[in-house]
Amino acid sequence: MQKELSNNPHDVLAGILAADMARVDNLIQERITSENAPRIPQVTSHLIDAGGKRIRPMLTLATASMCGYVGKFHIHLAATVEFIHTATLLHDDVVDESSQRRGRPTANLLWDNKSSILVGDYLFSRAFQLMVETNSIRVLNILANASATISEGEVLQLTAARDIRTTEDTYLKVVRGKTAALFSAATEVGGVIAGAPQTHINALQKYGDSLGVAFQIVDDLLDVIGDSNKTGKNVGDDFRERKLTLPFIKAIMKATDTEREFWLRTIEKGDQKDCDLEIALELINSHGAIEATRKDALNWVRQAQDALKELPDHKIRDLLYELSTYVIERLN
Amino acid sequence: MQKELSNNPHDVLAGILAADMARVDNLIQERITSENAPRIPQVTSHLIDAGGKRIRPMLTLATASMCGYVGKFHIHLAATVEFIHTATLLHDDVVDESSQRRGRPTANLLWDNKSSILVGDYLFSRAFQLMVETNSIRVLNILANASATISEGEVLQLTAARDIRTTEDTYLKVVRGKTAALFSAATEVGGVIAGAPQTHINALQKYGDSLGVAFQIVDDLLDVIGDSNKTGKNVGDDFRERKLTLPFIKAIMKATDTEREFWLRTIEKGDQKDCDLEIALELINSHGAIEATRKDALNWVRQAQDALKELPDHKIRDLLYELSTYVIERLN
Repeated sequence: MQKELSNNPHDVLAGILAADMARVDNLIQERITSENAPRIPQVTSHLIDAGGKRIRPMLTLATASMCGYVGKFHIHLAATVEFIHTATLLHDDVVDESSQRRGRPTANLLWDNKSSILVGDYLFSRAFQLMVETNSIRVLNILANASATISEGEVLQLTAARDIRTTEDTYLKVVRGKTAALFSAATEVGGVIAGAPQTHINALQKYGDSLGVAFQIVDDLLDVIGDSNKTGKNVGDDFRERKLTLPFIKAIMKATDTEREFWLRTIEKGDQKDCDLEIALELINSHGAIEATRKDALNWVRQAQDALKELPDHKIRDLLYELSTYVIERLN
Repeated sequence: MQKELSNNPHDVLAGILAADMARVDNLIQERITSENAPRIPQVTSHLIDAGGKRIRPMLTLATASMCGYVGKFHIHLAATVEFIHTATLLHDDVVDESSQRRGRPTANLLWDNKSSILVGDYLFSRAFQLMVETNSIRVLNILANASATISEGEVLQLTAARDIRTTEDTYLKVVRGKTAALFSAATEVGGVIAGAPQTHINALQKYGDSLGVAFQIVDDLLDVIGDSNKTGKNVGDDFRERKLTLPFIKAIMKATDTEREFWLRTIEKGDQKDCDLEIALELINSHGAIEATRKDALNWVRQAQDALKELPDHKIRDLLYELSTYVIERLN
């Protein structure tokens, strides 16, 4: 199978890690089979085969390799991270009542909510088995804490979602939960499994955290300015789901009294008319919220890059640096 | 607070373990707090305060104590087991669209499905954190495998539920998943944390497994013959949810052609009329399915009791023996 050559840092990293990534894919396939319940591999394959960027498992493989790991458990950990991610996607799509993911209909639409809930639980328990196989209590601790942060962030998002008084601080807590916790666990366990010095592990953790926050801010920005052909998401989903992401929060912070009425009606009361999305986007634009959000994302990218400076010279370190820039280039 | 004196083995065990159980309750309360998301303790307390028999954490405390454990981690493990149980209840009630649990409205009814899904995920990750604190990879392995068996059983139940060709063998697989896996993990980790010899651990595992199967068969039987005042469940829930439990499977095995048509219509097609529950119960009765199911349950109780014979003399061993008899006495 020929692939188009590309020199973006994601693809270069994927090229370097191709052999390991193939082992991760094999392990994933092996662990989603279920003799008793064929619904499990069906639902999981639908989501996993759709691709996605596999950025989380790649981060684990990359950091383990950069720290000189020679064992086999980075494969288990990369598969673990992808399983946790897939499990949260299945549950998220039920909670958000989403109909499209990665350019395909969601599992909750193709099967039902029940299957998405239970197969998500199954994947989470499979992730748990995989990480226990590493025999590393330290790794288990990191991933257990990440899991708790993820689900706490999801509940916080649910309860804060429709409140137009939501602050940037709350938004950041949600983002840390829904995205940065798994990114930083993915980079941290790579260093831990390799037995890297604590200063390096701290740097990897910080890199993952900042990259994750940047990644989510960009994702939220794309929901406002992107096009669905490129992102596989419907533009305006967050507005329709009344989910207050950073561009909205920034626009609401500067809202006039009349504008505040608009946000109250559309977000808190959920009374949305045909042209409301266009009005919302116009308000966001008029207050410079797009530009301000982009700047925040760039700031997080810089923090990710600063963290890498604590690490020794390495080809993969340079690629991780470029990867953080690449994340924000999705906006162009 | 004065409690009525009782000499049933559950209450006697609860009395002996009262100090430890209070520590478990404290640990649970401590770990369900969430500064960021108050919805989490609200939903969890609703379910946990409603009581339930706390039989799973009690099994862990009992087996650890019987095996002479002197540390503090049996408290963590008992709380872990209760958290996993509570998480599965929250998800089950969404999947089953239930409206009543332990005599109170379900969380999915009081809040919404989204809260039940996400708080369930949170409790599962909290369980995971608690068990990692024991530093025992062996314990983690047992609980990881139990989690996978639980969720595989749930998916199997979902896909097999409405198929009137469901066999007793499939039923047993589902029951092993939904109930016996956590019962046997609860008893096994008690022995493991205490460093008991392998023969004792095997016996504890087998006891928990058989007790769990008996417990679930009795529960399913109560859904057919019980009264909701005593059980806190609506009689006939399984029929209405088209869930084929053992009494149904036994009746369908002996069904005449006309009866088969009835089961096809009510269970597979879900076309249920006003008097259908009464007809179903009558068919179950007429084929002696109640009595046959009761015998199966008794057989599992005997197996649980046989397993205990491998263990040395101990007051708690005798109470566990009596507890297995007590499980089946719920039917009287």
